[in-house]
Amino acid sequence: MIESVHVIGAGRVGSAVAARLRERGLPVRGDNPVDVVLLSVPDRAIADAARSIEPGPWVAHASGATPLAALEPHTRRLSVHPLQTFTLERGPEQLDGAWAGVTADGADGLSVGFELARLLGLEPFELADERRALYHAGAAFASSYLVTLHRAASRLLDAAGAPPEGLLPLMRRTIDNGFQMTGPIVRGDWATLDAHVAAIDEAAPELSPLYRELAKASAP
Amino acid sequence: MIESVHVIGAGRVGSAVAARLRERGLPVRGDNPVDVVLLSVPDRAIADAARSIEPGPWVAHASGATPLAALEPHTRRLSVHPLQTFTLERGPEQLDGAWAGVTADGADGLSVGFELARLLGLEPFELADERRALYHAGAAFASSYLVTLHRAASRLLDAAGAPPEGLLPLMRRTIDNGFQMTGPIVRGDWATLDAHVAAIDEAAPELSPLYRELAKASAP
Repeated sequence: MIESVHVIGAGRVGSAVAARLRERGLPVRGDNPVDVVLLSVPDRAIADAARSIEPGPWVAHASGATPLAALEPHTRRLSVHPLQTFTLERGPEQLDGAWAGVTADGADGLSVGFELARLLGLEPFELADERRALYHAGAAFASSYLVTLHRAASRLLDAAGAPPEGLLPLMRRTIDNGFQMTGPIVRGDWATLDAHVAAIDEAAPELSPLYRELAKASAP
Repeated sequence: MIESVHVIGAGRVGSAVAARLRERGLPVRGDNPVDVVLLSVPDRAIADAARSIEPGPWVAHASGATPLAALEPHTRRLSVHPLQTFTLERGPEQLDGAWAGVTADGADGLSVGFELARLLGLEPFELADERRALYHAGAAFASSYLVTLHRAASRLLDAAGAPPEGLLPLMRRTIDNGFQMTGPIVRGDWATLDAHVAAIDEAAPELSPLYRELAKASAP
């Protein structure tokens, strides 16, 4: 049973995690031996941070794409990656309802990772070390590139003199409707798609390559 | 004041609109002269449908990209386009909270369009006829291509052995957090982006061009 966790890093994820552990009554820092050291630092800082830790406790990172090898020389090692986007403006409730990819070398590590994820309020699933980058690319499509879509859409509405805030109910409903596709693509209405391309080419040509690639990827 | 509307078309939009008008107590069909005939038919069917209507009432279409010229020979013409995605599984409440682009030739038509939009529960804004295609391309980014992103992300999680349902809390929170971008792009972490590309090239190469275009469009 995990009774103490040392969280290193106080960024978006580290802050929420530490706050959740405090809510659960666990000591999150201190000089005493701990069960788990959780590295919530930038990906490129993980290897250095891991090497600075005296071997003994489980050492975990919270990165999406980083392999376990970054935690050398530790052999009691694992990763718990919350499949969520975090902001410093919210607290530990950000963890609720999110899933978490858990990677470890064996059954003991997996068990610790699942326990840690659940302690944090996350729903864990096992994730193979060699598939982390693929998984994390999927997360980028869903979150970073969702932001990119919204920016592109806002830019076009703005250029058309329409209020970008009108996009919000549309985007939320698209999700609520289970991602049912509606609009010209599903109707096979190529004339409308051509009209879109012509309008973007004229008013926002920097978005034309992206529009074309999305249309291509959307073809039934 | 609009006292009767004849809705032609019973697809996703037409059904919701007719149900809302019935809720409001307005007659939606009948042989008597009506104030507004609203064409809720596929874009390519609008011109034929418009020509079949005896001149007299206001004639409106509910298309996003179609110009008013499609409503010839009518001169009392306008468009009300709900900026929303619709499903036959829901009713008139789908209109609530959505915005609507209203296009007309002059003040009288705009006034009828705004009144019709509000009668439907929509929040109207004026949209110039020559900017409809640009506006509608923005709507496609926000809705159709949001579906495309979700499909791409699901495909990658699936290929990685991770549960695609884990994407839902992530996508919703990305919206709830006001589209704050997090992840490797905002950290300038190009190594992780390279790892994404390598993983997609190997496991789902059909998504590589889209990933690259999205990454390019997301660069700060």
